[in-house]
Amino acid sequence: FQSKLPHLGTSIFTEMSILAHEYKAINLSQGFPEFDTPDFLKEGIQQAISEGKNQYAPSPGIPDLLTQIGELVQRCYIRDEARRLDPMKNIAVTTGATEALWVAFQTLIRPGDEVIVFDPAYDAYEPDIQLSGGVCRHVAMTAADYAIDWQQVRAAVNDKTRAIVINSPHNPTGTLLSQEDMEALQDIVLEHGLYVISDEVYEHMTFDGRRHESVLRYPDLFERSFVISSFGKSFHCTGWKLGYCVAPEYLMTEFKKIHQYVTFSSFTPAQYAIAKMLESHPQHIDALSDFYQQKRDVLVNALKGSRFKILPSQGTYFLLLDYSAVSDLNDLEFSHWLTKEIGVATIPLSPFYQTDSLEEYHKDNKVVRLCFAKHDETLIKAAEVLSGL
Amino acid sequence: FQSKLPHLGTSIFTEMSILAHEYKAINLSQGFPEFDTPDFLKEGIQQAISEGKNQYAPSPGIPDLLTQIGELVQRCYIRDEARRLDPMKNIAVTTGATEALWVAFQTLIRPGDEVIVFDPAYDAYEPDIQLSGGVCRHVAMTAADYAIDWQQVRAAVNDKTRAIVINSPHNPTGTLLSQEDMEALQDIVLEHGLYVISDEVYEHMTFDGRRHESVLRYPDLFERSFVISSFGKSFHCTGWKLGYCVAPEYLMTEFKKIHQYVTFSSFTPAQYAIAKMLESHPQHIDALSDFYQQKRDVLVNALKGSRFKILPSQGTYFLLLDYSAVSDLNDLEFSHWLTKEIGVATIPLSPFYQTDSLEEYHKDNKVVRLCFAKHDETLIKAAEVLSGL
Ligand SMILES: CSCCC(=O)C(=O)O
Ligand SMILES: CSCCC(=O)C(=O)O
Repeated sequence: FQSKLPHLGTSIFTEMSILAHEYKAINLSQGFPEFDTPDFLKEGIQQAISEGKNQYAPSPGIPDLLTQIGELVQRCYIRDEARRLDPMKNIAVTTGATEALWVAFQTLIRPGDEVIVFDPAYDAYEPDIQLSGGVCRHVAMTAADYAIDWQQVRAAVNDKTRAIVINSPHNPTGTLLSQEDMEALQDIVLEHGLYVISDEVYEHMTFDGRRHESVLRYPDLFERSFVISSFGKSFHCTGWKLGYCVAPEYLMTEFKKIHQYVTFSSFTPAQYAIAKMLESHPQHIDALSDFYQQKRDVLVNALKGSRFKILPSQGTYFLLLDYSAVSDLNDLEFSHWLTKEIGVATIPLSPFYQTDSLEEYHKDNKVVRLCFAKHDETLIKAAEVLSGL
Repeated sequence: FQSKLPHLGTSIFTEMSILAHEYKAINLSQGFPEFDTPDFLKEGIQQAISEGKNQYAPSPGIPDLLTQIGELVQRCYIRDEARRLDPMKNIAVTTGATEALWVAFQTLIRPGDEVIVFDPAYDAYEPDIQLSGGVCRHVAMTAADYAIDWQQVRAAVNDKTRAIVINSPHNPTGTLLSQEDMEALQDIVLEHGLYVISDEVYEHMTFDGRRHESVLRYPDLFERSFVISSFGKSFHCTGWKLGYCVAPEYLMTEFKKIHQYVTFSSFTPAQYAIAKMLESHPQHIDALSDFYQQKRDVLVNALKGSRFKILPSQGTYFLLLDYSAVSDLNDLEFSHWLTKEIGVATIPLSPFYQTDSLEEYHKDNKVVRLCFAKHDETLIKAAEVLSGL
């Protein structure tokens, strides 16, 4: 039987979480919070279940939730009242951002289309593109500071180019796209009639006063974009698998058609609970950046005396560490060793790269990713162990 | 923007449910129960939420649930102890049977492959096949009694044929495949090296002592099959979106790879609740056929004096009515009229057919589908109204 994904096995997140469990390591690998979802949300979902809201939701999501997503997006990114989205036409609820990404690529990509992806990249983009019949065109971020060189992007565009994938705040590097980045992107997209898939799942986690440059802030760019986010990240409930996509109506119409056949709809009671949460507790999301900035600072401060080089994190709940001064192992070996022998599970960075020569990559790059969505004690304990290396 | 599904809009189930709501009609259209999921399950899911089981489940499902699905399947269909499935290798939990179908087609179908589908067919198969790059080869069931003519199937097989889709108990007709059908299927599949996608979501609803001929009963056939089912149907919780797929390891390995990128995982707390339910309340599933047979009989008896011709239902929670003696309208018009003017929402049968000429179909076929997963009072009230026509 011929595999469609012969080079892929279990995702690195699954692999490291299993290893962490097996070796009882402190788990800073897969991105999920150690703390629980807010009580208000738990009570809301339990109430919806008690009330018997247990049958199919409408395929695009329940109207209350669509309305609240519309309010959120409007409040955060679209101050211009003339630019009001219609939640029934511009938004769909999905089974996590994972499904939203999948459906967006399926909607957009035709056999032979090229899609520009920036490395390092979240592991789903490549198989998503490949299984929709497209071809990934990898453009490396700059080695120095994980920035995008828009000249290189221009050089990568050709007749087959259909779309560009962006991801800000960026997993795994924690970098943010700036206003200049967005304008450069917009120029290229409009000039060549491309589309954008914008993975913004960490939108509410930006640090040091930095602003998230959502595609939704750029009307002309939005007209050619799928904007994707996730409640799992923002409400500490990654296991509820609730995400959403915002797009102009002509794209959303097609997105919804395909979504009907991918999952049809998502877990009904959670939709009621999150709609209520968004309506009555807007402060939760507004406080998220401060909450995670404090976590980042706890981890960074506790690692200050270590031999790891700490790379800057401007957003997300991830921090990169360069371990060149600690070990000569490549990042796959190092993260296995770190989990098994030292008791701290991280994510190696090489699986985020598409490279002809993994050896070449390993020579120049010794970096692992830590998730700091953990209790302060956990972060301090992990940092103590790492500081002993 | 060129649509990938230009001929499709909102699914007929969504359309009729919206219409039923709008006109306050008795809703016997979209297939979902009017009654709630069992209290034990509601308490189980609420407990899992309280206990903080709110982060990502493992992508293929939590081990407890996989184990319980293994037990269920073994108890129902595989008595031979030598044929023990390995739940960790043969099973994956999905976001409803809808996702399982989608992933199975994505795993199996390559551009240009042909897939044999029997008409009438559930509406998802065609777009699933098309979006995986395949081509649907429609074979009509016999007009008299919705049986499969295996000679016609043999005639439809060619070099490009990759798979056959079966669905028993069958939506929308309520027919069951017999042992002879399964043996005929197995012969063709083995002779031509085909694969099978077997949609068995109504597996626990068979009437008058009839046995469900799961593909799992046929070892050689199973070796080339994806068997798909759903907890939403069996546990009255269609909104929980929890289904599963059982397949031989070489197919399941590839299925799981793709499932990782379609949804990654499904709602975690429901997995704990359903695992406990399966373990402690096996009688729920064992009682389901009697439960729905009684519903069918209530509806059939209440319709006896009417001018509708009642077609036999051997399984599922659907019943077909031939309305030739009641109206000359085609089935789309008739079901709209019935909802708006008479107050009973049904599903027209023509959307389940792929036909060159809808007019041709309408000349010979005047049939609508009723869902009888409703309270007895609801069924009796609907039948009373229909009997007045
Ligand atoms: C869907 S599992 C991966 C979680 C995640 O986003 C990450 O760890 O990067
Ligand atoms: C996923 S909505 C359709 C429900 C159903 O299976 C049916 O009504 O046939």
